[in-house]
Amino acid sequence: MMRRHEFINEAVAAEILALIHQTADPAVLAERLNDYHDYDIAQALEQLTPEERLGLFLPLGALRLAEILPYCDEPEQVLAGFPADKAAAILDSMDSDEAAEILEELPEETRRLIAGHLSEETSGEIRMIASYTDDEIGSMMTTNYIAIPQTASVKEAMRELIRQSAENDNISTLYVIDDQGLYCGAIDLKDLIRARDYTSLDKIIVHSYPFVHDHDQIEECMDWISDYEEDSLPVLNAADQLVGVLTVQDIMDYREEESREVYNKLAGISEGTDDDLDEPLLLSMKKRLPWLVILLFLGMFVSSVVGMFEQIVAQIAILICFQSLILDMAGNVGTQSLAVTIRVLTDEALPMSEKLHLISKEVRVGLTNGTLLGVIAFGVVTFYTMVLKHYPLPYSMAVGACVAIALMLAMTISSFAGTAIPMVFDKFGVDPAVASGPLITTVNDLVAVISYYGLAWLMLIQVFHLV
Amino acid sequence: MMRRHEFINEAVAAEILALIHQTADPAVLAERLNDYHDYDIAQALEQLTPEERLGLFLPLGALRLAEILPYCDEPEQVLAGFPADKAAAILDSMDSDEAAEILEELPEETRRLIAGHLSEETSGEIRMIASYTDDEIGSMMTTNYIAIPQTASVKEAMRELIRQSAENDNISTLYVIDDQGLYCGAIDLKDLIRARDYTSLDKIIVHSYPFVHDHDQIEECMDWISDYEEDSLPVLNAADQLVGVLTVQDIMDYREEESREVYNKLAGISEGTDDDLDEPLLLSMKKRLPWLVILLFLGMFVSSVVGMFEQIVAQIAILICFQSLILDMAGNVGTQSLAVTIRVLTDEALPMSEKLHLISKEVRVGLTNGTLLGVIAFGVVTFYTMVLKHYPLPYSMAVGACVAIALMLAMTISSFAGTAIPMVFDKFGVDPAVASGPLITTVNDLVAVISYYGLAWLMLIQVFHLV
Repeated sequence: MMRRHEFINEAVAAEILALIHQTADPAVLAERLNDYHDYDIAQALEQLTPEERLGLFLPLGALRLAEILPYCDEPEQVLAGFPADKAAAILDSMDSDEAAEILEELPEETRRLIAGHLSEETSGEIRMIASYTDDEIGSMMTTNYIAIPQTASVKEAMRELIRQSAENDNISTLYVIDDQGLYCGAIDLKDLIRARDYTSLDKIIVHSYPFVHDHDQIEECMDWISDYEEDSLPVLNAADQLVGVLTVQDIMDYREEESREVYNKLAGISEGTDDDLDEPLLLSMKKRLPWLVILLFLGMFVSSVVGMFEQIVAQIAILICFQSLILDMAGNVGTQSLAVTIRVLTDEALPMSEKLHLISKEVRVGLTNGTLLGVIAFGVVTFYTMVLKHYPLPYSMAVGACVAIALMLAMTISSFAGTAIPMVFDKFGVDPAVASGPLITTVNDLVAVISYYGLAWLMLIQVFHLV
Repeated sequence: MMRRHEFINEAVAAEILALIHQTADPAVLAERLNDYHDYDIAQALEQLTPEERLGLFLPLGALRLAEILPYCDEPEQVLAGFPADKAAAILDSMDSDEAAEILEELPEETRRLIAGHLSEETSGEIRMIASYTDDEIGSMMTTNYIAIPQTASVKEAMRELIRQSAENDNISTLYVIDDQGLYCGAIDLKDLIRARDYTSLDKIIVHSYPFVHDHDQIEECMDWISDYEEDSLPVLNAADQLVGVLTVQDIMDYREEESREVYNKLAGISEGTDDDLDEPLLLSMKKRLPWLVILLFLGMFVSSVVGMFEQIVAQIAILICFQSLILDMAGNVGTQSLAVTIRVLTDEALPMSEKLHLISKEVRVGLTNGTLLGVIAFGVVTFYTMVLKHYPLPYSMAVGACVAIALMLAMTISSFAGTAIPMVFDKFGVDPAVASGPLITTVNDLVAVISYYGLAWLMLIQVFHLV
């Protein structure tokens, strides 16, 4: 597997370490390190002692370190290794959202020390980003962008770009603002580079370039944002002034987090986690216990329903054999419908008609699959009951038919429940992925138990008088 | 919800439509349309008649249309609306991987017609990309990149960039090749822009910039690629010549597909799907039936095991009430462990020690949760059996104890199965997510049934002589 790449990584990291250890002259070292990707240097950095890291501040400089640190597994650890003023210098040249995150990770004491040395600009930006709630776009934006004055000429714009790119490296799209800082559009860097000096800047400005507002709910506009497939999108404040940008990396991170959560919820794990391996036992327990306790009591409820059929089972003990079969199958189709529905609900906001369409489709799938499996079940159950359990043929066929019909019924109804229940939850603003799981398991069990034993009572006892 | 954004989109699309309908002069229209994002124009495009679209070829030009088309829901439809030569012209200016995809979607007849007009370069690129299997990096790369000769000066490099950027718009990273076309490193566009004319290009080349090879397995190096968080990565052939690049969008798409598949597998749906709503009934059935049939027969097997305890149930009918409870709980913890394990296995390649660590952790979680729930169950079951079912207290307590211990046992063993089984599958190169589901459901059921009824036989009949 990944050996080849791992090998390269290790080799590169080793190379870098050797360089650092052997090169005395900072200037030479600086130039040598320019040959490596920030990520690889970050890997090497983690193998250095705090003293050695300190020695890299001069050759690498705050700006480069600011680009390298975010690639470290624990950037706050590395940062804390530097004296407060140097650490602050690094944060100053870092993307404001990343700087804010790292600061949060630091112990109170260290944080205050470093914050004291931060530039007015940086602490201002960090304050601004911290002022947004986690579900607002503003909380994930960065101030790492290039702003070009609307009135600039192509030549001036290019000069602005060169000047600002020292600080900000999101340059593939440039944003245009007027003298009030109001957002007026975007320029594709490619167009600026290809523009002749005499073309007016206005010609290459995309005036209707998409944007979001800082207080927009991330969840609500993320799909919309992804549609544009842009490397960065501008974020405006209430006054339509440009206050930051969303980068494609921010969007990617959000997407991965999102899909992980949907996945966890389907599995009945309360919240997403970054590392299931190093996670403390107690935490893992806490995550799963709530769901399990709910299920226990719902299960007790099912048990009491089964209890109502106790006598039937006492009379026709063979029935007990197939209860698990029918409950499992109902559960399986229910989960399939649930999974499909949750994903559809997560992907898009559905009109009523679409919902009904999905429900009817799921039910038809359940019915057809249920019928097919029912036929198979009839054969196998009849055979099993007659040949292995030595019951008479008619008796065996009656049991087989009972199992088959119950199976079909249960699978159809479970498909319906698996689709309708999450929709209802969604309708009332309850997260369907979380809430549906337990309820559906129970509903499926009830459906299965009642249709199975109910049918058994009706067919085997009332009609065929097996007892 | 997304109303505000949807509103903007609709408004913008309407604006564009109005423009197209009202502006007669192609030159004017062309300039006006420069003000809009490709995505928005794509939205408008879909509301136009083929004739109207044809009318846009002149003002927009093949290059712009090539950028717009990929944003359409059905680009092949839009493309087919143009005469073969114009359609070919559009494909010529499109990213080679996108062009290849769209061609595949076209009906045989149309495809051959258009392919006939394609430039030698494009058809060559498409042939190359088609020559890779779907699991190879080469199949998802594009030839949309800027290549700078190693020997160029900063000024010449800038000129090269301007020249090539007419065709290729992935410019944030430039790739450096020698006169043999061998890859020698990358240049961050920012550095080129900021470089003085007299600096030697070599100074700003990152010589150890990461790369992949065209025949690398996507699955194997994707994690490695993502680590670098780059907008694009170079792809080399066996001779280490630069043949293409991977873009961040390709990586994003792959990630989404990947997480969707893991999700589907957990739900027991055979393969990922792009649209669960418009998917034909038969297809949905086919996707789920295989898993269900497997489960049916595994379920039959479980039934026959339950059958072995038929007599015990006939004697102590109350037991039947709690079978579903214990099976469900075992299933739930099993699924939780399975979900965690599958994600861990998907994320990283684990050494044996880590695996054992995860197993032991999951087992401890199962044991602790099982014990807690067992205690609760003992109370509730005893109460239920005595008060609602009117059995004597000792009898009720015996049943309660039996359920409680079986619950604890089943939950612990299921946690083990849910962790160990996928690891074994993974070890032998079988996709754990697909294979584990059915097997674990069965194992959990067997574990639960045997520990429950086995315990009942031991405790209630052998020890307490309840019958």
